[in-house]
Amino acid sequence: MRLATLLGPDLKDALQTDPAALHEALEEFHPEDIAEIVEDIQLDDAVSLFRALPDDWGADVLERLPPEVQTGIIGSLSVEEAAGVLSEMSPDDLVDVVQELQEERQELVTELLGHFEQHEPEVAEEVRELSAYAEDVAGGLMTPDYVALPPETKCWEAIEEVRRLSRAEEVETIYYIYVIYGQVLVGVVSLRDLILGDPGETLADVMAENVVTVRDSDDQEEVATAIAKYDFNAIPVVDEHGNMLGVVTVDDVVDVVIEEATEDAHMMGAVDPIDDGYFETNLFGLFRSRVTWLSLLFVGGFLTATVMESFQEQLQTMLTLAIFVPLIISSGGNAGSQSASLIIRALAVGDVEPSDWWRVFGRELIVSVALGLVLGLLGFARAYFAADGGEDPVTLGLAVSLSTVGVVLVGSMVGSLLPLGIQRVGLDPAVSSTPFIASLVDVVGLLIYLSAGGAILSMA
Amino acid sequence: MRLATLLGPDLKDALQTDPAALHEALEEFHPEDIAEIVEDIQLDDAVSLFRALPDDWGADVLERLPPEVQTGIIGSLSVEEAAGVLSEMSPDDLVDVVQELQEERQELVTELLGHFEQHEPEVAEEVRELSAYAEDVAGGLMTPDYVALPPETKCWEAIEEVRRLSRAEEVETIYYIYVIYGQVLVGVVSLRDLILGDPGETLADVMAENVVTVRDSDDQEEVATAIAKYDFNAIPVVDEHGNMLGVVTVDDVVDVVIEEATEDAHMMGAVDPIDDGYFETNLFGLFRSRVTWLSLLFVGGFLTATVMESFQEQLQTMLTLAIFVPLIISSGGNAGSQSASLIIRALAVGDVEPSDWWRVFGRELIVSVALGLVLGLLGFARAYFAADGGEDPVTLGLAVSLSTVGVVLVGSMVGSLLPLGIQRVGLDPAVSSTPFIASLVDVVGLLIYLSAGGAILSMA
Repeated sequence: MRLATLLGPDLKDALQTDPAALHEALEEFHPEDIAEIVEDIQLDDAVSLFRALPDDWGADVLERLPPEVQTGIIGSLSVEEAAGVLSEMSPDDLVDVVQELQEERQELVTELLGHFEQHEPEVAEEVRELSAYAEDVAGGLMTPDYVALPPETKCWEAIEEVRRLSRAEEVETIYYIYVIYGQVLVGVVSLRDLILGDPGETLADVMAENVVTVRDSDDQEEVATAIAKYDFNAIPVVDEHGNMLGVVTVDDVVDVVIEEATEDAHMMGAVDPIDDGYFETNLFGLFRSRVTWLSLLFVGGFLTATVMESFQEQLQTMLTLAIFVPLIISSGGNAGSQSASLIIRALAVGDVEPSDWWRVFGRELIVSVALGLVLGLLGFARAYFAADGGEDPVTLGLAVSLSTVGVVLVGSMVGSLLPLGIQRVGLDPAVSSTPFIASLVDVVGLLIYLSAGGAILSMA
Repeated sequence: MRLATLLGPDLKDALQTDPAALHEALEEFHPEDIAEIVEDIQLDDAVSLFRALPDDWGADVLERLPPEVQTGIIGSLSVEEAAGVLSEMSPDDLVDVVQELQEERQELVTELLGHFEQHEPEVAEEVRELSAYAEDVAGGLMTPDYVALPPETKCWEAIEEVRRLSRAEEVETIYYIYVIYGQVLVGVVSLRDLILGDPGETLADVMAENVVTVRDSDDQEEVATAIAKYDFNAIPVVDEHGNMLGVVTVDDVVDVVIEEATEDAHMMGAVDPIDDGYFETNLFGLFRSRVTWLSLLFVGGFLTATVMESFQEQLQTMLTLAIFVPLIISSGGNAGSQSASLIIRALAVGDVEPSDWWRVFGRELIVSVALGLVLGLLGFARAYFAADGGEDPVTLGLAVSLSTVGVVLVGSMVGSLLPLGIQRVGLDPAVSSTPFIASLVDVVGLLIYLSAGGAILSMA
């Protein structure tokens, strides 16, 4: 509440009368909470706030704002003002802002880089290096601000260096000290071991070798898996020669894991992943994220009509067959959705590999036949009582129940093996979404039911 | 490779000739990697390894083994040996092992607790306190091993205390020092600020107030959201009076986020979440995770047969109507799956609240009408060319396309509002799985299509 008051209608007055007092009052709050309120106030109020308060305060808040608000604020500041705030940000966050600006305000980015080139060439250099990486690989997540020292450094010297860098706010994480020989990463010492160790020992004496690293080109999902597996606070990023390039910290990884889970959940529901929140995405964005898949699935679904047409004669004479069409095809779709959600998730966390397809096939075969028998039994009962004179109840029951077994089997096979195949060819297995599997199985299910079920019925 | 050799066929020899050398060799590797191999070796080899090597080594490896291997090893050791290893574990991991043992080996847990009671009563106390919490709330994730000091402590005293506790391996994280008045949490100082600060200042001088905390009863998802939001390395857990109880560290949270995403993905696919990996779950476990929902959906699907039966006469005279049944109902299911996956994920990350239902309703209404019109147009074309003399092509086209608009609209509404309602009554919105939404929409979609579409056709 108090925070909302500080940034409320009296903000302009407060900024004019005593910006220092306002700054002190705001220091009480976490930048994340401040960012949440800044997001909702008028743009010109926000800009006045960034102008009046120190650059490091602005940097802390700016990095936590959504992209469109960042762009709005940076665009309204002068190049000098903007550069002041940006150069206080950690390089990885700065690059994210610059990459965001690039899309809409190319000329502003050129001006900013020119300004850095003149006044702080090392910032311009870092931005250029980091911009080379895609946002979703280790290189795009890492920060180049870490502590790296040669192996012969004494522990007390290392502590002094950590204090110096940390006081100058030049490092993002001080909890690991990386030991480099030339630029090659050869060991790591935790701050904990450093402050516990004998000050006269060298880093080479106390360091752990066999450092777990990721490559700069590794996908962010692999980075997340490595950090989660080893319970690290940070993981070093190296190039193909083992040269240290940066570190990815665990707090960025938590964001990555959440982001990837959202992406997968959307894809599984046949939605093109939306980057922003549900309410932040405009109506056209929501429409666009859904229309492609929905139309493709609909046009693909024309095949069901084609199958139905080709069995038209049979349906004419045995209309009871038509009655069970929705039930049977949906059971195949449901079984397929189940298998797909198990396998896609297992692929995402690394439990299953495409090369395991033979084992997956065996397991799904057994499980789906068991499931099919359960449903088949239920289906037999329902069909038995549906026969109203035209058909023999047992024959109709058999037609429905045997088709159900077949459809559940096919559904599970498609649902489990298709994601493996898609991953095998290098695509994201989550594109074999639940609706996609269901629609595919609809067609196959119809063919099975209308031909096998129809054959059984006509034998009677 | 080298690790696999160390733990390979010659393991027994190595343990008999020179366990100290083996221990030293193993120290080169991360316990996580060792655990991965121990998982696959013979149980009696693993037990010999735990017997021969120091308890703190055993503790590091044991906490990373899957539950069934943990139970196997602990069950094969004597009570004294097991207690030795267990008491070296951090309390939160120890409690996880004990809770796992509880299910199958109640008598062993009683013996172990009796042993702790006699020799290390503080361990028994901690286990009792932590066991009171469910595994998936903050209390079940937290460790009681943290650094907490009174506000009048001088910074140099605090550093000394951190060194002492850290050397004694009595704390899990030293990166935050919590400031408590009595037991009430009043502030926090990061290790970074502590080593940077003036040694003569007190913690009260340098601490940050307004500490972000979670309640012991908070769901693990809320803990993860808070840590992710504020980019913390650890978050303190307090009771209803603000007394500090423990801390949850970010590495545990990464695991929680992955676990919750898996749970949601399974539920979204109508699978009862399985706790272990795909291949670790036996066939019966896989069957059980799927049979309940699949059967329920199948029996619910009987309603589609009932609807079809009640329109039997109409279908008899207009068989073309039946031809489009699978296409139309699947488009409703697909639209519903899309909406559900967007909303369920937005609820999980806190973007949308059940109280937003009115805004969601408005957005889905507009978007789904637009989507429905696109599909309706496609459907019109398909139906127009399907009419083979019996029906007027335009009328058939209208029947199919108008029904499609209605079904897509209803599908999106059900898919978006049902999860909100389910969360509102306190259940996990992911139970409104994609197959559940699709099956529900099947029934409604059939009713719409057969009545509205049928009416349009018979008007012609």
